[in-house]
Amino acid sequence: MKSKSATTPFDVIAFDADDTLWHNEHIYLNTHDKFKQLLRQYHNEEWIDQRLHETEIRNLQHFGYGIKGFTLSMIETAIELSEGRVGGNEIQTIIEFGKAMTRAPVELLEGVAATIAQLAESYELLLITKGDLFDQEAKIARSGLGDYFRRIEVVSEKDVETYKRITAKHGIAPERFLMVGNSLKSDILPVVAIGGKAVYIPYKTTWIHERVAEEDLATKPYLTIQHISLLPALLNEMTPDVVD
Amino acid sequence: MKSKSATTPFDVIAFDADDTLWHNEHIYLNTHDKFKQLLRQYHNEEWIDQRLHETEIRNLQHFGYGIKGFTLSMIETAIELSEGRVGGNEIQTIIEFGKAMTRAPVELLEGVAATIAQLAESYELLLITKGDLFDQEAKIARSGLGDYFRRIEVVSEKDVETYKRITAKHGIAPERFLMVGNSLKSDILPVVAIGGKAVYIPYKTTWIHERVAEEDLATKPYLTIQHISLLPALLNEMTPDVVD
Repeated sequence: MKSKSATTPFDVIAFDADDTLWHNEHIYLNTHDKFKQLLRQYHNEEWIDQRLHETEIRNLQHFGYGIKGFTLSMIETAIELSEGRVGGNEIQTIIEFGKAMTRAPVELLEGVAATIAQLAESYELLLITKGDLFDQEAKIARSGLGDYFRRIEVVSEKDVETYKRITAKHGIAPERFLMVGNSLKSDILPVVAIGGKAVYIPYKTTWIHERVAEEDLATKPYLTIQHISLLPALLNEMTPDVVD
Repeated sequence: MKSKSATTPFDVIAFDADDTLWHNEHIYLNTHDKFKQLLRQYHNEEWIDQRLHETEIRNLQHFGYGIKGFTLSMIETAIELSEGRVGGNEIQTIIEFGKAMTRAPVELLEGVAATIAQLAESYELLLITKGDLFDQEAKIARSGLGDYFRRIEVVSEKDVETYKRITAKHGIAPERFLMVGNSLKSDILPVVAIGGKAVYIPYKTTWIHERVAEEDLATKPYLTIQHISLLPALLNEMTPDVVD
């Protein structure tokens, strides 16, 4: 392992997990589809989508992020859309959708395993993931990546306060902290706001709640790459030319 | 603030939260009662209790601990016990039970506020609580106690590995670590197993899943007190007679 701070531009590189290291959004989208199939006798798909989204947003205050809250929101939407006519069997089917989500295989994005293994040789890596503790720990365990990360932080919200707390807790100077993720709202903007650096790797789909208005982006500097495999080269360009 | 390690028997005192600092079990028990009222047309109360308990245990692997998982287990039990006849309105009522639980006021146990404030003057305090991240953070915020704790750890399981990880992460020697809690299974036995000290403060009710067989207890040394207010005096007895 190389001497770290002397030759690297950062002391710590932190990664988001869902849709940065492994596919996640598609598990929700697939379940959305199954949910719409189940309820299509009651309403058209667009209407179901809209009501489910409204229920999810309304329930965030009670349930936070994650599969269990999403499952409860599906159940609530099904009752509402069917005006109470939905049957016990259909509700049980929705609960089974939720259980299937908790068991879904963790599929790493292309290039993740090699890139993380490579970066772990030169950097301290941190995993910072938002959501349900139980879900996220299960996914980390199944990902096979857990050992590459010095610390794993499962948080209920990723805002400026969260990043201040995490960097302070681990004694990391913000300018020596790099965050890598697929969410402008959660991984990029709050990090640059505290003086950290951020690399944005867009994922093919982004949950509507995570989208950021264009005007919020104008003055915020961050780097964008299209694939995690490009990260080591980007870091090498940033590294000062110092001989060990 | 006193110089800590010179005059105190521990570097860190960690507290469990639910039913150690604030009442929690009664929120579940009250909801159990409401659930039985709702379903009494289908079955007798004992049978409902037994099936709900079975469903909870079976679902721990999918949902972990916490209100959302409990709510999903109530829904599943209602469907099963009614053989699918339960109506949308009843399911919605169960979801509302869950939401009410997430909003339940945090009622501190008697003596907690004064004892925690007093101990925080001489010790670094840690909060180690098992359960749902979102639920637990909300309760800590509402408890008004958050600022007394140097670190808060919400964990999905409290076993030997968990305590090893937390003490290592914070650089605490196990013999300088004291855990205080109401669960023999989660707060006491795994801590003494790693060479830490533990103080057991029994709560008036204990969830059946948390109970420990008598034979598991025989060889494990730990202290028991009946009230958290007795803790400072107990610690003073343990403190070596050293002049600052």
